Amino acid sequence: MIKHKTPSASETIKTEVVCPNDTNPLGILKGGRLVEWMDMAAAVCAQTHAERICVTAAIHSADFYKAACTGDIVTISARITRSFNSSLEIFVFAFAKNVMTGKNDLICEAYLIFVALNDDGKLAKAIPVKPVSKSEKKFYTEALRRKQPLIKQKEKYCSNEKKL
Amino acid sequence: MIKHKTPSASETIKTEVVCPNDTNPLGILKGGRLVEWMDMAAAVCAQTHAERICVTAAIHSADFYKAACTGDIVTISARITRSFNSSLEIFVFAFAKNVMTGKNDLICEAYLIFVALNDDGKLAKAIPVKPVSKSEKKFYTEALRRKQPLIKQKEKYCSNEKKL
Amino acid sequence: MIKHKTPSASETIKTEVVCPNDTNPLGILKGGRLVEWMDMAAAVCAQTHAERICVTAAIHSADFYKAACTGDIVTISARITRSFNSSLEIFVFAFAKNVMTGKNDLICEAYLIFVALNDDGKLAKAIPVKPVSKSEKKFYTEALRRKQPLIKQKEKYCSNEKKL
Amino acid sequence: MIKHKTPSASETIKTEVVCPNDTNPLGILKGGRLVEWMDMAAAVCAQTHAERICVTAAIHSADFYKAACTGDIVTISARITRSFNSSLEIFVFAFAKNVMTGKNDLICEAYLIFVALNDDGKLAKAIPVKPVSKSEKKFYTEALRRKQPLIKQKEKYCSNEKKL
Amino acid sequence: MIKHKTPSASETIKTEVVCPNDTNPLGILKGGRLVEWMDMAAAVCAQTHAERICVTAAIHSADFYKAACTGDIVTISARITRSFNSSLEIFVFAFAKNVMTGKNDLICEAYLIFVALNDDGKLAKAIPVKPVSKSEKKFYTEALRRKQPLIKQKEKYCSNEKKL
Amino acid sequence: MIKHKTPSASETIKTEVVCPNDTNPLGILKGGRLVEWMDMAAAVCAQTHAERICVTAAIHSADFYKAACTGDIVTISARITRSFNSSLEIFVFAFAKNVMTGKNDLICEAYLIFVALNDDGKLAKAIPVKPVSKSEKKFYTEALRRKQPLIKQKEKYCSNEKKL
Repeated sequence: MIKHKTPSASETIKTEVVCPNDTNPLGILKGGRLVEWMDMAAAVCAQTHAERICVTAAIHSADFYKAACTGDIVTISARITRSFNSSLEIFVFAFAKNVMTGKNDLICEAYLIFVALNDDGKLAKAIPVKPVSKSEKKFYTEALRRKQPLIKQKEKYCSNEKKL
Repeated sequence: MIKHKTPSASETIKTEVVCPNDTNPLGILKGGRLVEWMDMAAAVCAQTHAERICVTAAIHSADFYKAACTGDIVTISARITRSFNSSLEIFVFAFAKNVMTGKNDLICEAYLIFVALNDDGKLAKAIPVKPVSKSEKKFYTEALRRKQPLIKQKEKYCSNEKKL
Repeated sequence: MIKHKTPSASETIKTEVVCPNDTNPLGILKGGRLVEWMDMAAAVCAQTHAERICVTAAIHSADFYKAACTGDIVTISARITRSFNSSLEIFVFAFAKNVMTGKNDLICEAYLIFVALNDDGKLAKAIPVKPVSKSEKKFYTEALRRKQPLIKQKEKYCSNEKKL
Repeated sequence: MIKHKTPSASETIKTEVVCPNDTNPLGILKGGRLVEWMDMAAAVCAQTHAERICVTAAIHSADFYKAACTGDIVTISARITRSFNSSLEIFVFAFAKNVMTGKNDLICEAYLIFVALNDDGKLAKAIPVKPVSKSEKKFYTEALRRKQPLIKQKEKYCSNEKKL
Repeated sequence: MIKHKTPSASETIKTEVVCPNDTNPLGILKGGRLVEWMDMAAAVCAQTHAERICVTAAIHSADFYKAACTGDIVTISARITRSFNSSLEIFVFAFAKNVMTGKNDLICEAYLIFVALNDDGKLAKAIPVKPVSKSEKKFYTEALRRKQPLIKQKEKYCSNEKKL
Repeated sequence: MIKHKTPSASETIKTEVVCPNDTNPLGILKGGRLVEWMDMAAAVCAQTHAERICVTAAIHSADFYKAACTGDIVTISARITRSFNSSLEIFVFAFAKNVMTGKNDLICEAYLIFVALNDDGKLAKAIPVKPVSKSEKKFYTEALRRKQPLIKQKEKYCSNEKKL
């Protein structure tokens, strides 16, 4: 019988405080630093689900909605949506909270793809995801749809991307 | 008359060496760290083109093709493809070279969107891009096409993404 | 009427992965690095409870039970036990999990004292803690007892500590 | 004949300058960062005395007396007080000096316990300490007294600490 | 026949943005941090030329002409001037550009000496440099002259430098 | 009457442990990282002597004698040799000690020049140095001699250095 695991079993939370070095000269959290934190939370989530070392294979999309500033508390949540053979899609979102006002805003959402590796660095089979809640089922279904345009997009552009 | 700038005028190159802390336990460069470097190169490229502070608004997609390992020399190149009102699309790619063998592989390609900001943090108008070479013109044309699916995709998913 | 807040309202979780630079030459997570992470989680917990900037005033005690190694997933939890005038006691503990075996061990427990500050850097009154569960009530009661030996201990040693 | 070493033979001094990333949003040196520096100085002191790799086993207490600010010069001193079988008690204190005014304040004192390890990671016997000065002898005597309450305290709380 | 390589074949460019932690309390880029970046660019240049691991053997001189400030874009260029047996002289210079004004100033020039190492850590023979442009030939010729005073200087001072 | 200060009044000691990220792929401490540490120790020494913010103006020379490896304890000492108008020459040397063998080797010596700044960032007059010991007097005398070749060298090369 195949082992399944629920998304909540590998949910990962990571709290950070925006420090001066994480910001640009306007005091706004740099996108690259936020993605680094989100990638780490997503990697822990993927590894907890897969019970193996996982590496980032792609970022579908990452959207930055609001700016976080120095001193803000950033809370990052990572949840697996679905696994395909050896790849796992992780949905990650981040909130930033102002300590004084308590205002807490969604600042970024991203879909990251990881692949699970064997001890010898080869692709390993990923444990299937068993969605439970209504929202988990929707994410699960749509993960397949999110996969399609990426494949087509790659076919379209792959001929010229190397020629820059 | 409107000022235009060519992509080559703001091309940005950033060289890094993969250090132990940039890697996972298998000695493979972490995706999040690579994106942080690519975001910094892209931000410099965007700011050099825009002559203003620019912040990351989105990562269209980032694809990781090969693993880079401790000691590898990573060379990151960032070039603007096109600007739209206040947003700028930057194409970034990274190569990793083994010092001993000289083998140099493309490890990642990504499209990042930046927005230019005024001194008061409001959106500023971006200087238009004037593509010159055949390849630059292709990137310029396709930037518009890359923009469409993202818009549609957002419409499709925005209703449920907040409900996780 | 005085505002009270429960410990669960400010509980803070922080996930980290042990990287090579966090370890000593034997590959064991350094105590000072772990305390830095725990202090950050505790500061976020204190600030979320106090709705003000909080700074570390003391570490009652920190006990390191097991070693964490490179690649381990470290999960840190911080909870407020009680507040006294302007000081807050935060209990922090950390678990380390091996990705491959799934073994998850308690590696450290610590009691940290924070003080809440006004905008002008002066001590501010801390919001009282309202313990709910049986365990929360025990922590609340014992916080007072933990405070006593510290006070006595200070009286005993304060005369000679400056003379080293 | 048993080898003894004096405290002054392993005294360790570490100078740091408070940088923006070491501070909280009020520009005050974070407690966790200071402890990280003090732990490193103490580890060097312990290893110099023990002539072996040493790891942090506990922090008895750390008291933060004053705030250090960005630009301050922090001087950390670590001295061994006494060794017990395989454990070593290190007393660490830190001063912060303002460059312009020259004002130099004691900002933190802490007692850290280290254990010495063999090459195979097992506990190793620690070299005894031979106190020379009057102050060293007082620290030596009181190290035993400091050890007692910790043991009792552990007995008292160990039943409920795991139940949070 | 001996293999020769031109300076342009190993030219290395590294772009950085000055972050708060790279500066002193006046917001000026610290000299030591800039040298760290220049050393990394020079090491990549030396390794690309030598096709081996290279380590820093000396810094002839480094002159800091202007201050770079937080937010400035620093572009570092490293070029080999000449190789002698197992040592390589790398000339490195850095420019700092203000994003808003576009003003771009030379901030530092330095000559670094590297040695190439075999797999067993022993000195390896360095590939000779073949200067092409007039400027490259001048640097090549003068590399020998730069070497002389260093040797004499060492003879002069080596007797007392160890006695401080 | 002019105020003088002795070299010992501003002597600065900084202890570091070589961590994996400080090393190259052969596990050898990177030259640039060591210079960064030495520059920080020298800056503290210069600022303690000058009672003002000081910035690095030049590195006369830095010579790397031996390699330090991961786990080694690096002890850096910085002493002022002489001041000229607004510049100060600091002599810095570093030792690396192996924890297990206790072997302690001189790994680097460097002469760094700092300038003292007023609150408005202009050059400030430096407090004269009063050498006391025989060795301090030798360093003091030779500081003048070290200054000469640098001036001549600059005249010689300044015409072509900008033309690379």
